[in-house]
Amino acid sequence: MVNNLHKKYRPLFQIPENWIYFDGNSLGPLQKTIIKKVSNMISNEWGEQIIKGWNKSNWMTQPDNVGNLIAKLIGADKNSVTVGDTLAIKLFQAISGALQVSKKTGFVLSDESNFPSDLYIANSYLKEKNLSEVKLVNKTKIEDELQKGKVSILMLTQVDYRTGELYDLKKINNIAKKMGVITVWDFAHSIGALPLNVREDDVDFAVGCTYKYLCGGPGSPAFIYVSPKYIDKINPIIAGWLGHENPFNFDLNYKPARDIKRFRIGTPPVIQMSALEEALKIWDNVDINFIRKEAQLLTSLFIDKINDLKFDMKLISPRHSDQRGSQVAYVTKNAYEKMQALIDFGVIGDYREPNIMRFGFNPLYNSEEDIIKAVEILNKILKNNLWKNKKYSKRKLVT
Amino acid sequence: MVNNLHKKYRPLFQIPENWIYFDGNSLGPLQKTIIKKVSNMISNEWGEQIIKGWNKSNWMTQPDNVGNLIAKLIGADKNSVTVGDTLAIKLFQAISGALQVSKKTGFVLSDESNFPSDLYIANSYLKEKNLSEVKLVNKTKIEDELQKGKVSILMLTQVDYRTGELYDLKKINNIAKKMGVITVWDFAHSIGALPLNVREDDVDFAVGCTYKYLCGGPGSPAFIYVSPKYIDKINPIIAGWLGHENPFNFDLNYKPARDIKRFRIGTPPVIQMSALEEALKIWDNVDINFIRKEAQLLTSLFIDKINDLKFDMKLISPRHSDQRGSQVAYVTKNAYEKMQALIDFGVIGDYREPNIMRFGFNPLYNSEEDIIKAVEILNKILKNNLWKNKKYSKRKLVT
Repeated sequence: MVNNLHKKYRPLFQIPENWIYFDGNSLGPLQKTIIKKVSNMISNEWGEQIIKGWNKSNWMTQPDNVGNLIAKLIGADKNSVTVGDTLAIKLFQAISGALQVSKKTGFVLSDESNFPSDLYIANSYLKEKNLSEVKLVNKTKIEDELQKGKVSILMLTQVDYRTGELYDLKKINNIAKKMGVITVWDFAHSIGALPLNVREDDVDFAVGCTYKYLCGGPGSPAFIYVSPKYIDKINPIIAGWLGHENPFNFDLNYKPARDIKRFRIGTPPVIQMSALEEALKIWDNVDINFIRKEAQLLTSLFIDKINDLKFDMKLISPRHSDQRGSQVAYVTKNAYEKMQALIDFGVIGDYREPNIMRFGFNPLYNSEEDIIKAVEILNKILKNNLWKNKKYSKRKLVT
Repeated sequence: MVNNLHKKYRPLFQIPENWIYFDGNSLGPLQKTIIKKVSNMISNEWGEQIIKGWNKSNWMTQPDNVGNLIAKLIGADKNSVTVGDTLAIKLFQAISGALQVSKKTGFVLSDESNFPSDLYIANSYLKEKNLSEVKLVNKTKIEDELQKGKVSILMLTQVDYRTGELYDLKKINNIAKKMGVITVWDFAHSIGALPLNVREDDVDFAVGCTYKYLCGGPGSPAFIYVSPKYIDKINPIIAGWLGHENPFNFDLNYKPARDIKRFRIGTPPVIQMSALEEALKIWDNVDINFIRKEAQLLTSLFIDKINDLKFDMKLISPRHSDQRGSQVAYVTKNAYEKMQALIDFGVIGDYREPNIMRFGFNPLYNSEEDIIKAVEILNKILKNNLWKNKKYSKRKLVT
């Protein structure tokens, strides 16, 4: 039994009684101390300092300070990460930055299983620049495409949002660099789940969100990492005042900050920031390598247990735990209804189009016991066709 | 004595004891109920519903629902405003949208006193499109420039961030429309301070922030209004997934929502949204026309009282209250030091480069008594040269 983290850390989380929460890959649960932290920020900082909070409570420097906490989690240099906005905005900045520092003409390459929003964002930017759309290939063809020498920018999400399939970042990034390709990685499903080392792996840009495995809360701000060698070479595509070298000079002309601050845009969401800052405290003590190891154990156990049931559920996640992130997905008929039934019985996973049941695991609060119980519940639902109850077919706005 | 609103509403706000808060034009104070509202959102929504909160607590539709509350405050049709991101991002979207619907070639016109960030944003977009920079003229020349017929887009901030000078929106917008010019108004210092009517005045785009007179809290999200006649004609420049017609279909191709949702981008900052939503409740009862009337009274009283002191402070705000927003500014030597001393003595205004003391008034919590007291304190500071104390010359990050 190597599954130990949850014993220490699960009590820090507020998870509804009788829930088995396998959806932290979509939204991480609340750490109880955040309630007090945010309440304090509101009453004692906003309430008691009002405008003075910008200096006195360091609201203005917080995005960069929190950025440095994130930097540690991705193996980045200090002052090479800043936090704010949403993943969409941060990716928009990264793509623009990548195009600016690229020395090659060529296309932007991605895979056809990438998170659609990443493609929307990149394509909306490319369209604006009258450049051709992102070229999409199958994941297995990425290396070949890179070798052909016609790629200028590689934009990939490290962990597939549906299957959990994991790119060998070190290998792919290395090929890209050898071919003179600028790399942009989306760590949405990586950060807090996988050991990352952007410096060692020579990643050029990385972006990610903080509300999945980092448990920053709904709409917690995103982050952007820019390789220090490029930071001062990029003209920010969205030149907001807080990216200015000296915003409070109110110069008529934009002069970007010389450091990572140039990737800041507008006034930071201070209340969200304080929740995120508190959520990140857990990383003072937790070793990501243990998390990874235990997550591999949990996903493997889940796959084995589901296998034992011999139901008509096709695993679409890689069999080998080294090749997947912290989530497991199955294709099955009536996946939506089955997932709604599962949720109704307290096992919270989610559904993804067109027929996918998705389960995410976080060893900080999930245990082997959770898995055993969850699979028993699934067994009951499938065996007795409980999912056929009409109430489970009603589509919700957010799946 | 027509100054009555504060009697009813001031008790709703948490303002530190012995403070006279004249900086609500920078950051509005906390309404006490927000503490409980946000605490409840965190404990009972995020904590108890986790992922289910998106449907169950309407987190997903909240940006549009809050947008409709804002719509009422600017005289906009339902479903023509959405809330999210920062003012910088929303302006970026508006400028891009304005260029798309403009039927004229020509330049973007603004005034040289506009909030610099608005110019940075517009210029960063124009540069990206290889278009010429925003043309800046003196405020007094805007009408002439419009009449010359070479303007395609007019981008103005209704209330000057330094002087408080107010554009006659109805008149200027009318001239612009007659000349076929698309209008983009920044309501940062207008919303919650002035009666606004974008429909009646035929405004094309408007953006604004919600942390000044709307008291949404530090980093509260921004809003964008798009005239209903243009909404479905604009391709969102930043095509994030939540602007998609059906985000949870995860289509590979972006298809913008047919309504105002296409101006949404990424995952909304739900905690900030809940603070803002609570802050806006006050508008169920308050009539903006009363606010405006009382603010005019307050700013006039302040000007008169300062005048009486006969100090070397030059009013740079318009003399006539119809021509200014809810703020008053003075140019004076050592403005920074004088403002720091004032703040130290409990009168909270702010400093703007190069030599401006700025005071903002909100009749919801400011009274005539505040003004009389504040001016007495200023008198003491100036008469006795208290501002010459060295501690007042130390520059802070945020002024």
